[in-house]
Amino acid sequence: MEDCLFCKIVARSIPSAIILENEHIVAFLDIMPRSPGHTMVIPKVHAPNILELPDAEVGPLFLAVKRVAKLLSKKLRPDGITVGMNQGRASGQEVDHLHVHLMPRWRGDGGSSVQSVVRNAPKESVEDILKRITG
Amino acid sequence: MEDCLFCKIVARSIPSAIILENEHIVAFLDIMPRSPGHTMVIPKVHAPNILELPDAEVGPLFLAVKRVAKLLSKKLRPDGITVGMNQGRASGQEVDHLHVHLMPRWRGDGGSSVQSVVRNAPKESVEDILKRITG
Repeated sequence: MEDCLFCKIVARSIPSAIILENEHIVAFLDIMPRSPGHTMVIPKVHAPNILELPDAEVGPLFLAVKRVAKLLSKKLRPDGITVGMNQGRASGQEVDHLHVHLMPRWRGDGGSSVQSVVRNAPKESVEDILKRITG
Repeated sequence: MEDCLFCKIVARSIPSAIILENEHIVAFLDIMPRSPGHTMVIPKVHAPNILELPDAEVGPLFLAVKRVAKLLSKKLRPDGITVGMNQGRASGQEVDHLHVHLMPRWRGDGGSSVQSVVRNAPKESVEDILKRITG
């Protein structure tokens, strides 16, 4: 898409620090890293989020996430990695081209778990929510 | 694995609120939900994290994540979804069987983005880190 920042990165019309690329994806270092080696993996096809990513691109995207996790683990020797994506403004998504964040983690880095991003416990019971979803 | 909590959920020897299941995965509601509809998607095969998940299971797992995101979007009408996984104790992983969290998000729920889990900006430049990873 013409006005999409990440499509421009795919097209190389904007430079980026690419660490892995194949026919399906580009993986590049975040320019405002939250931790050393903070990487984003994006599909080459434009899709705002996983809901709109064609099924045929889902496997290749996350196989690349696995490859990048392996590469970061080997080269930077972190104690862990946080992997995540924001879907929609309400979750903090800023660029409407699906991107998976990989943030290497070290013991004592002061960070938390992905669950820590929200504390909005439901008033309903899990059983009632189950009925709403499966009913 | 015998002592793995999530393998027991797969085997149905521990009950859970399952919202989707197929030959590769089980998706069930978190019993300590951070938001209404907080779901975990796990592979049936035991793997502590994505690094150790066989390539053949990666696509099916994340296709299921897409299906679950669709189901939650349709049934609960959130404004967004946070998707993430913790890899390793240093990132907050508590159960050593890969699990992808999906946490429905609503405008004004007080939550943040996946990037907010850590603030450990590197002292090195992005260029220097790029060299360490690709060198």
